[in-house]
Formats: sequence, structure tokens, C-alpha cells
Amino acid sequence: MTLRRLCGIFLLQSLCQSFFTPCDGGNILVLPLEGSHWINMEVMLEGLHGRGHNLTVMRASTSWYIKERPDLYTSITVEVNEDIEVVFSSLISEHVRLQREGGSTISFLKLTMYFLSIQSRAHSLFADGLSRTIEDKNMVKRLIDSKFDLVLTDPAIGSGLLLAKYLKLPVVLNVRWITTGEGHFAIAPSPLSYIPALGSGLTDKMTLFQRIKNFFFLCLAMFPGKFISEPIYEAVCEKYIEGGCDVTSLLQEADIWLFRSDFVFDFPRPTMPNVVYIGGFQCKPANPLQQELEEFVQSAGEHGVIIMTLGTFVDSLPKEVAEEIASVFAKMPQKVIWRHKGERPSTLGNNTLIVDWMPQKDLLGHPQTKVFVAHGGTNGIQEAIYYGVPVLGIPLFFDQFDNLVRLQARGAGKILQLADINGHNFEVALKEVLLQDSYRENMQRLSRLHRDQPITPMDKAIFWVEYVMRHKGAAHLRTEAYKMSWFSYYSVDVVLFLLTVVTVLLLSVMVLLRSLCCRNRRKLKDKQN
Amino acid sequence: MTLRRLCGIFLLQSLCQSFFTPCDGGNILVLPLEGSHWINMEVMLEGLHGRGHNLTVMRASTSWYIKERPDLYTSITVEVNEDIEVVFSSLISEHVRLQREGGSTISFLKLTMYFLSIQSRAHSLFADGLSRTIEDKNMVKRLIDSKFDLVLTDPAIGSGLLLAKYLKLPVVLNVRWITTGEGHFAIAPSPLSYIPALGSGLTDKMTLFQRIKNFFFLCLAMFPGKFISEPIYEAVCEKYIEGGCDVTSLLQEADIWLFRSDFVFDFPRPTMPNVVYIGGFQCKPANPLQQELEEFVQSAGEHGVIIMTLGTFVDSLPKEVAEEIASVFAKMPQKVIWRHKGERPSTLGNNTLIVDWMPQKDLLGHPQTKVFVAHGGTNGIQEAIYYGVPVLGIPLFFDQFDNLVRLQARGAGKILQLADINGHNFEVALKEVLLQDSYRENMQRLSRLHRDQPITPMDKAIFWVEYVMRHKGAAHLRTEAYKMSWFSYYSVDVVLFLLTVVTVLLLSVMVLLRSLCCRNRRKLKDKQN
Repeated sequence: MTLRRLCGIFLLQSLCQSFFTPCDGGNILVLPLEGSHWINMEVMLEGLHGRGHNLTVMRASTSWYIKERPDLYTSITVEVNEDIEVVFSSLISEHVRLQREGGSTISFLKLTMYFLSIQSRAHSLFADGLSRTIEDKNMVKRLIDSKFDLVLTDPAIGSGLLLAKYLKLPVVLNVRWITTGEGHFAIAPSPLSYIPALGSGLTDKMTLFQRIKNFFFLCLAMFPGKFISEPIYEAVCEKYIEGGCDVTSLLQEADIWLFRSDFVFDFPRPTMPNVVYIGGFQCKPANPLQQELEEFVQSAGEHGVIIMTLGTFVDSLPKEVAEEIASVFAKMPQKVIWRHKGERPSTLGNNTLIVDWMPQKDLLGHPQTKVFVAHGGTNGIQEAIYYGVPVLGIPLFFDQFDNLVRLQARGAGKILQLADINGHNFEVALKEVLLQDSYRENMQRLSRLHRDQPITPMDKAIFWVEYVMRHKGAAHLRTEAYKMSWFSYYSVDVVLFLLTVVTVLLLSVMVLLRSLCCRNRRKLKDKQN
Repeated sequence: MTLRRLCGIFLLQSLCQSFFTPCDGGNILVLPLEGSHWINMEVMLEGLHGRGHNLTVMRASTSWYIKERPDLYTSITVEVNEDIEVVFSSLISEHVRLQREGGSTISFLKLTMYFLSIQSRAHSLFADGLSRTIEDKNMVKRLIDSKFDLVLTDPAIGSGLLLAKYLKLPVVLNVRWITTGEGHFAIAPSPLSYIPALGSGLTDKMTLFQRIKNFFFLCLAMFPGKFISEPIYEAVCEKYIEGGCDVTSLLQEADIWLFRSDFVFDFPRPTMPNVVYIGGFQCKPANPLQQELEEFVQSAGEHGVIIMTLGTFVDSLPKEVAEEIASVFAKMPQKVIWRHKGERPSTLGNNTLIVDWMPQKDLLGHPQTKVFVAHGGTNGIQEAIYYGVPVLGIPLFFDQFDNLVRLQARGAGKILQLADINGHNFEVALKEVLLQDSYRENMQRLSRLHRDQPITPMDKAIFWVEYVMRHKGAAHLRTEAYKMSWFSYYSVDVVLFLLTVVTVLLLSVMVLLRSLCCRNRRKLKDKQN
């Protein structure tokens, strides 16, 4: 029964995909973010392009990942002062180096300061690009004349939101993180009692002391947004948008949130009617490997293959860590494919293939792949879930630790901190994930749950983008909450009113009782006299 | 573009329907509720039957609406003491009579007491039926031997939840109302600042005094649940379920909430990952009318047709109201079809056809239908939205006023209170809804929004029922909130801890300062001496 039903669902999904009829096409202005965020945005753009929509992408002149692709979109290139690759990659290498220094409070503070400096430089760069765009009258005329139906943007930077406000266009977000932390915190009630804050490493089951820790981590997570990025964008708002604006309000006014997560991956929590979960939308059935790689993978026989990559930003690990890891790999009966651009470790075994780039999805979807050693970026983790491959995680920055915590809580992954890694614990952890069946079983359960949706996450994303075009927004899905002052939203005024009424009533009763009492006493005295 | 796109969506919807492959079938135990709730549950059962599932329906021996239908389901008939039709219909006629008496506080109190007496009798009847089921060892054996995959129930009565707990089965709810009011209040954060309580007649935009009113209406709406129905079920829990249970916890433990609403109809609000919106799932394209009725409808010419019905429970209005309404209808150039079982009004015009029953959906879907005069039951209102027919509403009880308030807030309907109706205001209101284009335009906008979904609400419902079968529940979609005590959920313990720490710190500083101060003073004194 189960198999036939699942077949039914998959058949349904693929038919849904093919029966979305092509259409004359809308006109979409896209403001993406660099790096891994662009990798998934590009997949979404390919989907929208396939439906016949015209896409215009705003990119920085020094863009690192966002190249011109006339086959897919028209590019609008905005001059910026700094080289984005240099800003990101140099800062991130430094971040990794500091992280390796270890768990002392001073390291933690240094790391935090470093992280804030990355954020500040990046937001200033994008806000500056936005100002130049608005200052350029020809550019503004071009944008208005293009008659865009909507702005599609990743609000981890605020420029897309601001430009949409300036051009008075509906907004669709391709989102997980915003300038103040996890996206939901801007629009949905988020009880801290079971919703872990960014970076806390907590799950949805917390003791009292973990909940106290969670409170402090929320403050910490919101700090960079409130005091670094938001003021940068608010200055732009004040200058160019009548009446000013702030990033939080702009987020709350967005029409649809295409949220790059789902409740197989994330802990369940309150959500909102205009949040559409598209986690793993970039995943597709794996393609066959190139012959040479396929031969290498098959040569592993029954032991299978381990694959390792640390994502978009990090080419290599500190030398001593790479040496330790290579020596462990060399001892394993498995074959290993390792994306590593740094110096070739001297301890490298014959079973390990070092590559500059790997077809990650196709390898994850290969039945020979047994473990994925990864940094825990959202894209990679969602691909691991889609293909059902357990993860040994080495989180480096951003949301990676939190992502891996979610896998670990479900028994589908294990975390090793970069600061603690040595040959011994890496070997123990790797063998645990490889040899304990529960890791694979749990991950495959997550995979079954994730794949079991009435339509694919990608079709959902496309549907809701087109929905916003058809109805010129989706205002009816936004709550009234965002228009209210905090004291009205939290009913502070109602409570104060009721307290006042109760106090006045109590006082009146007391005064009445007192006057009655006095009168009686007086009468008693009169009688006695 | 728009038309082609919409065609694409409708094509997709119908294809989705046909490509859900039939399967060997699950085994579903259904505990429905009487009246209009059964009407929509039966539509859902037809959908599930079409997918090859075996259905077993538990019905009361004196059931009013739930007949035996061996073509659709196996019936399990439970003996109950009272005739359900008599309980409901006599009590409801009395309710309508009292409502007509008007808006004084005494009428309101009488009405409230009457409403509570209906609730109390109904819940006692169902709880008693449940106790008999559990006491009957053969019945329990039959239920266990049937190896049901899940319980599908309408939690406006609690018996389905309790039986599922007793049989340790996953639960899918077909729900809008629960024993304590609107369903969401049991599981989702519900800020009273923009979420109107049952019966308040408020929208999501409230002034301070409306928000105070909302607070009192929430207390009022929760009263019958907390003090009448829940204790009835808790007594059953205590007797038959190890460790006892309560209805609220059982609701929070339910796997999937198929919610008979959506955010075209309802005001947007926070929701939960396991709530699936299936509002209007019972709606289908209209069938052609029978020849005689079609001829009557066509004879209306360009003026079109008005249809009027007051739903499942109410056959007729008080005589004087019926007379007034009939005389207004007689003056109209439209033709009128009126479901009315009471005495034939003497003022009835030739243009008015009185019927015992009408094909409501087919008439609402007929292009000649211009206005729907209705009581505002959820089914009828959702059908009016589906077919885009504006509504003149005469709310009688339950959620009808609240439903109509939602339409009125969108300019798609108008409300007349039964207590206030007379010929004059009925005529004014009817002409307003008929002749002001905005009512029809707004309703048709709602219709377009409602119909624009990636899969039909019925397919969504079936998908999630089967999902619970495939995965033996959907525990991963339930938040941790329901396992927490209220003081942990609201972080009261965290706040107390932090306040204690701050107080201790402040006191320590004060003590320190004081001792320093004293020492200095003493030194000063010593010096002076």
C-alpha cells in the first residue's frame, strides 16, 4: 500500500510540474544576495524563466557569484566601491582562523567582533549601491518604465525591500535570515520557551537554564541587526522615502515569504498565513556521475564513499586540521571525495580524491554515498535530507551550527566543533555516523517526510510568485499586527484600563466602607454619650 | 495572461485530482457531528471513499442526519437515550423565538442560558454514548480488531478525541469550532489585540474599547467549554483513560487539523504547522438545474433571482417576520426561491417560489442568481464565496454572526439582526446588496482569491489524511508548547529568575555602598573627635 501511495504522490508531483502551462510571462525585478544565497536564488530564477517570466537581476559591479547570464535574465550592474569576493573571502578566512583558536571568552568576543565587522561592511556596501541606484535618474526611469510586477529579494540584506518600497511594488521574499536574525521573529509570535534563538545551539526542548540562555542569545542575535545593519538602511530610508521607513516594517509589509525551510528540517513553531515553506526547493533527482568519478565511486565496493566539502565560502581548513582529517580518511576502508583547495595534506591516503569542485547533489544522490562531512550550510543540509545521507558536521559560521543542531536532535547527524577537532575525535565521530544504523535510518525517515508533499517546494514557490502577480500583492494574507503599536499589540492599554477600573472600584468600596464604619462609630459614641 | 494562467491552475487542479492514484485503502474510524457538520463530513468521506479507503462511522441510534449508507461506510450504531432531532430542533426553535424578542439584557441572558442548555444536553448525550461504547467489551474488541489507521473526527464534540486516546490511534480533525470556541485558540498564539473572539461581532481592526469588549467576549466564549462541556468529558477521561486527560490536551496532541476555513474568508492570524486550511472543500462546479427550476430561473430575465434559506436547523422564521419578508419579495422585479417550511405567508407574491428543499450549490452557481439571503452558516457562506454571490445575512446562532461579519468587513455582504427586521429595513438592505455593484465585485474578488490555490482544498484534505496513515501520525508538526506548563510556556520562571538575580545584585550593591558610606562617616567622626 505504502509504496503504491508514494508512487502516486511522486507521479502527482511530476505531473503538477508538467501541467503548469507556460504563460506570457510577468516582469520580475530580482535583488539577490551573494554566495550560497545566490546559488539557490539562481535555481528559483531558472524555474521562473521556465514559466516564461522576464527577469531582471540587480548585481554589484564587483559581484563574486552573480555573473551576467543573458540566457536567463537581464542584468542591471550597480557600481560599488569594494571587491565583494575580497570583502567576504578574506574576512571569512580570518573568521575560521579565529574560530580554530578555541573556546575561550576572549576568542568568543574576538569572533563576535569579527562577525560584526563582516556584517557592517557588507550592509554598507549594499546600502551604498542602493543609494547610487536611486540617485541615478536614468536608472530610476528605466526601473519605472520596466513596469515590474513585483520585486523578488533575499532580505538578509535590506536593499531589495527598500527599492520595492521606493518603486511601490509588491514584494516576494526568498528568505530564511533577516537583518535581525531568524526571519520568523519579524512577523510570527515566537515564544522563547520553545523556539531557540540563532546561535544558541538549543533545540525546542529546553530546561529552565537553557531558556535563560536562549533569552540572552536572542538579545545577542538581534544586536547586529538593531545596532549595525538597520541604522544603515534607515539612513537610506530617511533620505529617499517619504515619511521614512524601517527594515522590520518593510518585512512585515512583504506579500509572500518563500521560506527556505520546512518542519521536517526545522522545529515546529507558530507561523503566518503568508509564509510558504519551500525548504529544499533546489533539490532534484540526481544525475549520473561522469564516467571517471563513477568508476572511482564504484571502486569503493561495499564500503561506499564519504564526501566532504565546507561550502561556498571556505576553500580550505587550517593546515593542521586538514592533516589530521586526511590521516583519518587514509585509515578508512571507504573511498573519500574531498573538496579542498588548500595545500595538499602530506598524510593523504590513496583512497582520497581531492577535488576543486564536486557535483555535490549527484554524489549525495548516489547510492554509494554513506556519509556527508559538511559545514552545515542550509543548501547542503537540505540536500542531505532530500537524498537521505547522514551528516558529520563541522560548523564554521552563520546558521551552520543551528542547522546541524536540528539534524543532531533528530539523530541524523553529529557535530564536531572546529576548535576541538583532532584525529582521534574525528575518527570516532566519523565511524559513529558511518557504522551506527540509526543515523542513516533517521536521515532516511526525514527524507521520506520531506519528499511527501502534495506539490514540490519549487512548484509552490512558482505558484505563489505568480499569485502575487495575478492579484497585485497578497495583502489579505497579512495580519493587522504590523500596523499596531507595541502597547496595543500586547494589549498593554487594555490591561491598564482594566486595572484602573478595578482599582477605582476597590477604592470606592474602601471609601464607602470607611465612611459607613465612621458613621457607625460616631453613632455608637453618640449613644454612649 | 491572467486568463491563461488561471486556466493553467484549474487544469492543474483537475489533473491533480485525477492523478492521485487509487490505492489499496486505509482503515478510518469516523466520529462525526450532526447537522451541517455532517453535511460537510459526508462530502469528505465521499472523497476518501473514492481513494479506496474503508470507512467506519460511529452514529447515534437516534441520529438525525447521519443515516446508514452501506455504499459509503460501515455504520456502528451506539444506543443513546434521547432523540437527537428533538433535542436540537425544539431547542433551536425556542432559541430563534427568544432571539426575535430583541436586544435587551434580559433577552441576552435568557438566550445565553438557553444556548448553554443546548450545549450541555448535546455534550452529555455524546459523552454518554461514548461511555456505553467503552463499557461494551464486544464493541471495544471489534474496534481494536479493525486495526484502524486513524480517527477522523469533528472536535465540536469531544467523544472522537477521547475514543482515539482510548484506542491509541492518530487523530485527524475536521474542525472549525471546539468545545471552548474557535479552534485556533487551543493551539496557536492568539493575540486578542487583532483576533476577534467568538460572538464579539468584531473584525481584526479594533479600537481600544473594542479590544476591551473582545477580552470579555473571549471569557464568555470560553465559559461553556470550561465549565460545561469539558467537565463532562473529563469525567469520562478519568473513568476510562489511565492517568486521566482533558479535551484541550487531546486537541493539542491531534496530528492534523483540517480547518474548515481559509484566509480569504477569515481574518489572517498566527497558525501552526499542522493546521491545513480546507475552507470550501465541499464546493464543486454547479450542476445544471432540473428543467422546471431552470425555466423558473430563466423567466426572471435580466433582473435575475434571489435565493433564501436559513440552513439545516431552522425550517421557518417567526410568522410576522415571514409575512414582512414575503411582502418585500412580492414587490421586487426579481424572481425569488425561498426554502420555507412554515405556514405559507399571506403576503406571498407570484414571483416567489416556496420550496421544502433547494439545490443550493447549483442555484448559487447559476449566473442568474444575484443575491443569497442566508443565516450565515459556514457551509453556505463558503459556497457563496466559491460562486461569488453577495449575501444578505440574518444570523441566528452559533458562528453565523461572526461568519457574516467577515463578509461585511470585505464589503461582500450585509447583516440584518432578526430582532430588528421589518419590511422597511429588509427592503432597503436587499436593494442595497442587489443594486450596489461593489457587493458583487467584492464577492467575486473573494471568489477569485479562494479558487486560486495550487491544489483544491479537497485534495489537500485527502492528502493529509493519507499522510497521517503513511507516517503513522504527524508528531513532527506539533510544537513542544503543548507539553509545557503555562509558567514555562510564558517564560514566567525565566522572568522570575532574572528579576531575582537583578534584585540580589541591586541589594548587594546597596549593602556595599551603605557599608562603605558608614565606614567613611565613622572615619569622618573619628577624625572630628
